[in-house]
Amino acid sequence: MPMASLTSREACVARDATDPLRDLRQRFIIPEGLIYLDGNSLGPLPRAAAGILNHTIEQEWGHDLIRSWNSAGWFDMPLRLGNRVGALLGATPGQTVVCDTTSINLYKAIHAAIGLRPDRHVVIAEADSFPTDLYIIEGAMKSTGRPMTRRLIGADGTSIEAFIDRQVAVAVLSHVNYRTGALLDIADITRKLHDAGALVVWDLCHSAGVIEIAFDHGAIDFAVGCTYKYLNGGPGSPAFISVARAHQAAAQHPLSGWWGHAAPFAFDRDFRPDAGIKRFLCGTQPIISLRGVEAALDAMAGVEIAALRQKSLALTELFMARVTALLPGLHIVTPREPAMRGSQVGIAFDQGYAVVQAMIERGVIGDFRAPDLMRFGFAPLYVQCREVWDAAEILAECIGAEVWRDPRFSRRLGVT
Amino acid sequence: MPMASLTSREACVARDATDPLRDLRQRFIIPEGLIYLDGNSLGPLPRAAAGILNHTIEQEWGHDLIRSWNSAGWFDMPLRLGNRVGALLGATPGQTVVCDTTSINLYKAIHAAIGLRPDRHVVIAEADSFPTDLYIIEGAMKSTGRPMTRRLIGADGTSIEAFIDRQVAVAVLSHVNYRTGALLDIADITRKLHDAGALVVWDLCHSAGVIEIAFDHGAIDFAVGCTYKYLNGGPGSPAFISVARAHQAAAQHPLSGWWGHAAPFAFDRDFRPDAGIKRFLCGTQPIISLRGVEAALDAMAGVEIAALRQKSLALTELFMARVTALLPGLHIVTPREPAMRGSQVGIAFDQGYAVVQAMIERGVIGDFRAPDLMRFGFAPLYVQCREVWDAAEILAECIGAEVWRDPRFSRRLGVT
Repeated sequence: MPMASLTSREACVARDATDPLRDLRQRFIIPEGLIYLDGNSLGPLPRAAAGILNHTIEQEWGHDLIRSWNSAGWFDMPLRLGNRVGALLGATPGQTVVCDTTSINLYKAIHAAIGLRPDRHVVIAEADSFPTDLYIIEGAMKSTGRPMTRRLIGADGTSIEAFIDRQVAVAVLSHVNYRTGALLDIADITRKLHDAGALVVWDLCHSAGVIEIAFDHGAIDFAVGCTYKYLNGGPGSPAFISVARAHQAAAQHPLSGWWGHAAPFAFDRDFRPDAGIKRFLCGTQPIISLRGVEAALDAMAGVEIAALRQKSLALTELFMARVTALLPGLHIVTPREPAMRGSQVGIAFDQGYAVVQAMIERGVIGDFRAPDLMRFGFAPLYVQCREVWDAAEILAECIGAEVWRDPRFSRRLGVT
Repeated sequence: MPMASLTSREACVARDATDPLRDLRQRFIIPEGLIYLDGNSLGPLPRAAAGILNHTIEQEWGHDLIRSWNSAGWFDMPLRLGNRVGALLGATPGQTVVCDTTSINLYKAIHAAIGLRPDRHVVIAEADSFPTDLYIIEGAMKSTGRPMTRRLIGADGTSIEAFIDRQVAVAVLSHVNYRTGALLDIADITRKLHDAGALVVWDLCHSAGVIEIAFDHGAIDFAVGCTYKYLNGGPGSPAFISVARAHQAAAQHPLSGWWGHAAPFAFDRDFRPDAGIKRFLCGTQPIISLRGVEAALDAMAGVEIAALRQKSLALTELFMARVTALLPGLHIVTPREPAMRGSQVGIAFDQGYAVVQAMIERGVIGDFRAPDLMRFGFAPLYVQCREVWDAAEILAECIGAEVWRDPRFSRRLGVT
């Protein structure tokens, strides 16, 4: 789906009509008239989800009550859904569970990775990482009981090589930067870390479900990510953690709750972790929100990540081309090279907050990240070329009209 | 509501008709013909919950999408719901948040408590605690970075005094034992621990919402508990953690996620915890399951815990009296003294698994805990005297008929 030829709105409409993925949009509720470019923050409601969730609420909880832990498969959900998420990451079954939050899962993964490298004291992190990753690294380092050092690589993710040596226990890296959309070469960096004897924890929040991730082939050690962005699991739906089979037996973390026990119903007094991935479970999971993840995975049935990736690149390319054509001076922070970007486009603009607010009023939802970043996500499951074309036009209109002078759009702290 | 006079089914029916709490039952969906004595494991669906949840799914998620983080108050839910749960515990606002799981919250609380007593090395725990408490104590002790010792008090919770000395940093105690239903004197034990300079973490899983807990007046340090038992928040709904205001500024834990930051949207690189209770938040919460907690709290509006406690004691007293009358040799493990029991009755019986299965087939839902415990919970929001009467009759019928000889009820590992 090369986009070079799309130089009119009509061409975009025509392209949408022949898009091989065009029917996937029907699997989601996209409110009439809305151009939703924030699926990288909260994916839309899968069309079948309300019915599935209502069944869980009224039949499983309301009618079957406690029996549903068995009869409705509640107890198996973290692993069953984990295997399905794992399939989207290129991880064979038994290496992924869906549970807890990304932050909690990061804590488990970093703690376990440090424990697997007892003679090393360095954790590599990215200065421009999503802040929770940095905060959790702090917490995990403190709770290992040995002196650890954090090496913070600069905003240029490609310079990571300079930080790798044989003191490094683990690197905690974002596959796609949450601000710029820059994409790291996961296989290459993992290999370089392994060559130095280090491990890696990949944060896949902004790539799971939209970019191919060769978990097994790339020999990734640990990965975590959320399920409510490109996976569309619903607001705050439980996160995932993947741990390579080779590490599982030795990987330990201190969130040793009953669900991670080898025999959770034996009611032993001492903790004995499950032999496999289930040792990364801890407490009882929020079943209704978990069911949202299941409904969302159903909505991706039969979809090839490779095809999504191809369309995603076409959408971001079209958006950047249109923005450049309409607003030549605007600073697009996202790499133009396809292999170096994820599925979002970031634009630095000091009045970005007001512009994003004005675009929302005009039916285009993106988001803003302080101090000056406008962020637009292009989820290939449902975003159309025509919408990309229109969104660029509306962005240009808002900036051209100097909407930031309108007091209705004046700066306040964004929450989303 | 003294029960001594209830010596016939008719008397029970008459008592239900004049029960001042009788209308509360209408706030919940209790399937026709079912006697539900497992609200201590999973509370029933509040009647209004399906509509509230459906609104969250279809309108807030489906239509309003990312905007709902502000417009629907998603972002404020952990604290807003926490304040409402706190009110049921006797905790003034700003000391409770609803988030994560009981296990995760226990980890935070124990870690913080140990940190507040840097010159002490002992954690007191109960041998017959719910296992996750013991497992999490192990994990938290290991991750404090200093040598800690666990003192395990015996099955007789009243002997805790013998374990208290000035080496004790913190005791982790269940207000109500999950098996026996034995209730500890929370004020008395807290005072004794404080007299020795120790702190206490109370696990309120089996008392929140059904027993008065004077969090503020009793000077409780930390408390955790789940919201899906007597609070009826739905399967695996997020748990709560309460931290006394006096401890908050100094209480630290390593699950330092973005939602616990003093300025979560400033995107600082270093973790700076919120000054108050929000420092006990970590990652993004499962909003739909959280909304279930809100619907459940709505269903308790205007209800006095003292009135629930009075009815609960009457129900458990009636059940024990009837079981004793019908099956004089049966071993009830729950204390007969009202001040020493919670809202459940445990009966030890070596064929208990089969008996519970047979009772379920006859429409009475209790549960079984290995190796031999039949457990029946009496949630005063909806359980009726007539149901208690009938449940005891059906229990006697199942045991009298030696149902465990029926291969359909043969022993297998229970999951719930």
